[in-house]
Amino acid sequence: MKHIEWKNHCLYLLDQRLLPNEVKIIACKTVEDVCEMIRTLAVRGAPAIGIAGAYGMVIAAEAWNPTLGNFRKFMEEAEKAIAATRPTAVNLFWALEQMRSVWQGNGGTYDPQSLLDKAKEIEEDDISRCKVLSAYGATLIPDHAHILTHCNAGALATGGYGTALGIIRRGHEQGKVSMVYADETRPLLQGARLTAYELMEDHIPVTLITDNMAAYLMGQGKIDLVITGADRIAANGDAANKIGTYGLAVLAQYHKIPFYITAPLSTFDLTTATGKDIIIEERNGDEVRSLGGIFTAPREVPVVNPAFDVTPHELITAIITEKGIIHGDYQKGIAEMLG
Amino acid sequence: MKHIEWKNHCLYLLDQRLLPNEVKIIACKTVEDVCEMIRTLAVRGAPAIGIAGAYGMVIAAEAWNPTLGNFRKFMEEAEKAIAATRPTAVNLFWALEQMRSVWQGNGGTYDPQSLLDKAKEIEEDDISRCKVLSAYGATLIPDHAHILTHCNAGALATGGYGTALGIIRRGHEQGKVSMVYADETRPLLQGARLTAYELMEDHIPVTLITDNMAAYLMGQGKIDLVITGADRIAANGDAANKIGTYGLAVLAQYHKIPFYITAPLSTFDLTTATGKDIIIEERNGDEVRSLGGIFTAPREVPVVNPAFDVTPHELITAIITEKGIIHGDYQKGIAEMLG
Repeated sequence: MKHIEWKNHCLYLLDQRLLPNEVKIIACKTVEDVCEMIRTLAVRGAPAIGIAGAYGMVIAAEAWNPTLGNFRKFMEEAEKAIAATRPTAVNLFWALEQMRSVWQGNGGTYDPQSLLDKAKEIEEDDISRCKVLSAYGATLIPDHAHILTHCNAGALATGGYGTALGIIRRGHEQGKVSMVYADETRPLLQGARLTAYELMEDHIPVTLITDNMAAYLMGQGKIDLVITGADRIAANGDAANKIGTYGLAVLAQYHKIPFYITAPLSTFDLTTATGKDIIIEERNGDEVRSLGGIFTAPREVPVVNPAFDVTPHELITAIITEKGIIHGDYQKGIAEMLG
Repeated sequence: MKHIEWKNHCLYLLDQRLLPNEVKIIACKTVEDVCEMIRTLAVRGAPAIGIAGAYGMVIAAEAWNPTLGNFRKFMEEAEKAIAATRPTAVNLFWALEQMRSVWQGNGGTYDPQSLLDKAKEIEEDDISRCKVLSAYGATLIPDHAHILTHCNAGALATGGYGTALGIIRRGHEQGKVSMVYADETRPLLQGARLTAYELMEDHIPVTLITDNMAAYLMGQGKIDLVITGADRIAANGDAANKIGTYGLAVLAQYHKIPFYITAPLSTFDLTTATGKDIIIEERNGDEVRSLGGIFTAPREVPVVNPAFDVTPHELITAIITEKGIIHGDYQKGIAEMLG
């Protein structure tokens, strides 16, 4: 079963909101279908939404006909709609830019096949980037490692192999992973629902904890390293990732545990100087007030619900990409790797 | 509405598992009824389970008659059953000891009235201790304070005024509390269900967050102090409290935010030298795998579910009791206060 699949002029996406209780594939036939899937986190994970967004542009191109007006204007509108779904992960904007270079390069002519080729390239490219990055990252895993990860930076979050979970997969193949602790990642429980599920499917040993148990395990010496993905990495190495990542980085430093961030180069944004410049998506408060449709708090209680936080580079031991491992002077290392 | 009430030879307890969706009072007529309420967290909070346990001993004494054998043996059995419900909070053992001094002092004769008087004294005493402690604690709250609290150390957790929330109540009466951030406190959501509810009922400004948002708010300068209750405080000042407390203490230190623990003297245990000697209750893993009866993770995923963690005294800015504020040399300060 593939979680992202293009077939018969249609994008089929696994509805990740329903996992692990239900495995349901949803067919996206319009740009709005794709937008809705990204907005509601039916498809999530920075690289995965980049890929979904790219296929969204193929759907737009295939839907176009001269009665709908100017091709470029039509494509611009579609791009704007997809870009407006979620503001923080930069991979979406990166993928849309990749697609734009094709439909703008067509000189305003109608060529959905070249767009489909590009979207497929982005998807396949992501898997191979994840695999290379995972090989680099696995070198940082010691023997008998107990690893804590946050949210889901796995196959489901990417084209198919994963970043943080890709590294864990590779380390497990090498016989070095004794236990993966997955924190549940409130409010939307990507850790409990997706990471626990993915690792169990692959027979990698996993233990689920609530987010507030991480410090307890670290204090007991049960965590050897922390590794998470990222949704946007600024030019100085500050990294936006799922809410709770920053707290884990602080806890890791206190307990002298290495804290790694991993992401493909499409997650880096040189136009964002530091983490302070990253827009943090604020989501609907009912995500915090409820769980699985059941209200767990007074319905009128005020909440804050930032979807991400920013971990400053000084708390990051190393950043792992498909071109190698960056540490020390992030500004320089990132510029060199991207330049 | 009282959450703990003795009436017509029966202990009436508010079922805190159902809050805030349902307000239901349950009548406990047997020792086993009381044990079940404590074990399942229908009544919870270290001082509150001490009070419930004391009334449990009254129920035992009232149930006794000569056909049930020796009075003392009967009472010992009841005490053993109540003591076995939960291992970490010391107030329960303290209250049972208070009750024992009465039924043992009776020379083995049947005198439920003296036991009832003692249980009522423990209950009323707890409220007045909370109020005195709250007055001390409120002196530590600055003007326009933004306060983070964890779990529920409120009226519901005590005889009726609260420890951490008692201090916040007093500070609010003095016009010093701008905002209370309540973290939801997974797995059982005492923050979302009880603290948010209690504060809203009292018209104290509250904002609910998930546990993993605390670091984000601290990083943004939105928290001026953290204050929590405790379930057992060792002779050196190490404090056991709801899982997640230790992590908040580490985060507070990193962000240079004062971190306060508050508890009545019945929470201190001089026979526990340090936090390492405190038994941490491990609860059923389904509490982590599910919420409100709905599974949010694969049903077979292994979990850990410690109900508490221990915050070492060096991370605690001060401990607030009904006899004053302890800081600096906790070993000395605690010995003096209890001695």
